[in-house]
Amino acid sequence: MSFLLYDLAGAEDDRRFSPFCWRTKLCLKHKGLDFETVPWRFTERDAISFTGQGRVPVLVDKSAGDKAVWDSWDIARYLDSAYPENPLIPEGAENLVFFTKCWVETAIHPKIAGLLLWGVYSHLADKDRDYFRTSREKVFGRTLEEIEAGADAGVEALRATLQPLRLTLKSTDFLGGNSPNLADYIAFSPFAWARAISERPLLEADDPVHHWRERMMDLYDGYVRKAPGYPVI
Amino acid sequence: MSFLLYDLAGAEDDRRFSPFCWRTKLCLKHKGLDFETVPWRFTERDAISFTGQGRVPVLVDKSAGDKAVWDSWDIARYLDSAYPENPLIPEGAENLVFFTKCWVETAIHPKIAGLLLWGVYSHLADKDRDYFRTSREKVFGRTLEEIEAGADAGVEALRATLQPLRLTLKSTDFLGGNSPNLADYIAFSPFAWARAISERPLLEADDPVHHWRERMMDLYDGYVRKAPGYPVI
Repeated sequence: MSFLLYDLAGAEDDRRFSPFCWRTKLCLKHKGLDFETVPWRFTERDAISFTGQGRVPVLVDKSAGDKAVWDSWDIARYLDSAYPENPLIPEGAENLVFFTKCWVETAIHPKIAGLLLWGVYSHLADKDRDYFRTSREKVFGRTLEEIEAGADAGVEALRATLQPLRLTLKSTDFLGGNSPNLADYIAFSPFAWARAISERPLLEADDPVHHWRERMMDLYDGYVRKAPGYPVI
Repeated sequence: MSFLLYDLAGAEDDRRFSPFCWRTKLCLKHKGLDFETVPWRFTERDAISFTGQGRVPVLVDKSAGDKAVWDSWDIARYLDSAYPENPLIPEGAENLVFFTKCWVETAIHPKIAGLLLWGVYSHLADKDRDYFRTSREKVFGRTLEEIEAGADAGVEALRATLQPLRLTLKSTDFLGGNSPNLADYIAFSPFAWARAISERPLLEADDPVHHWRERMMDLYDGYVRKAPGYPVI
């Protein structure tokens, strides 16, 4: 085992829901690199204080003198640089992958977060709940209960926002073409987040985004599908 | 001159505003190909009936037996295939460029169109006005005058939607990196449309999208900047 990954977990050690951590796990799988995950909770800042910051994913490369890298984007770039075979980012397309990341984080995350916050909260370890409630209610300006009460109404808005992804996936298996690249992992990560903690249906059965999500869950011997989660549509 | 391009024009022959035609002109410039444009109006369907459809851009490749290609995406692919030097689409990134196109057309066009329709109408040839008013009022469900009355209020929504482009352009000159590719031409095309027919300010002076727009207007010896249009911010 050559990598250690600090991976956000719920009350159960194997309930992993962070979209940013999912990106990194799929990047490691893409590269065929062997890794072990460490379940980590929001309030366990001390465990990753060696990075000088408080967020996961944190990746420790044991075959490179325990080099630590954090931020899912920087981790992907590190992996492409240190382990160049099977690139995550196609040459000459770094900005386009970055654009996809920015789209996911500014257009999709704000729309999907409200649909998932209650699910996250319900699956958290007790010690994380106060932190999560306080920080998220501050951002949203509403209680978690109020956000959840309005969540079903937000599903249509999410579906509408997915339109550029939908149109692209109408005629291709992956954003990367015949096989996935980092853009797929980033765009898929909100759905890995969703299935881990929520039963709320997000997509329609005939949506190309749904079919792509199924393909993404099948990758690497069903790596995502085997992780604890809910059956999703 | 080896190419002929049917290019949407207003009342004045050189008032060119179609974002789709701008994409194609910038693709031809990118390839260093010599072309001549033919001013075309919405109601001049007969002039392009040889394509079996009624929209521009239509490109005629005179050095390839007058081969006609239409639809700005298909034209870009044709140019990369027939004139492979200096690719418009980086290898392995076709889906990512296509995703950018889908984002521009489903997220940006609907938000910017309402800000520009009155400007387009004001610059149209008389014979095009009825067609334009009828077709656009049907799509929007409001009169052109009503759309224009609410347009200033839509500027903020456009700016918010541009966020993924803004974040990407914070740290790079072009989506293509040090030089532009098809993703730049597509994302820029709504701004080429805007400056041709509207004085409405769309961006703030410190917006990275504005600085990129300036760079795009400087390309190819100021090709866009030299075309009739309004000073924009």
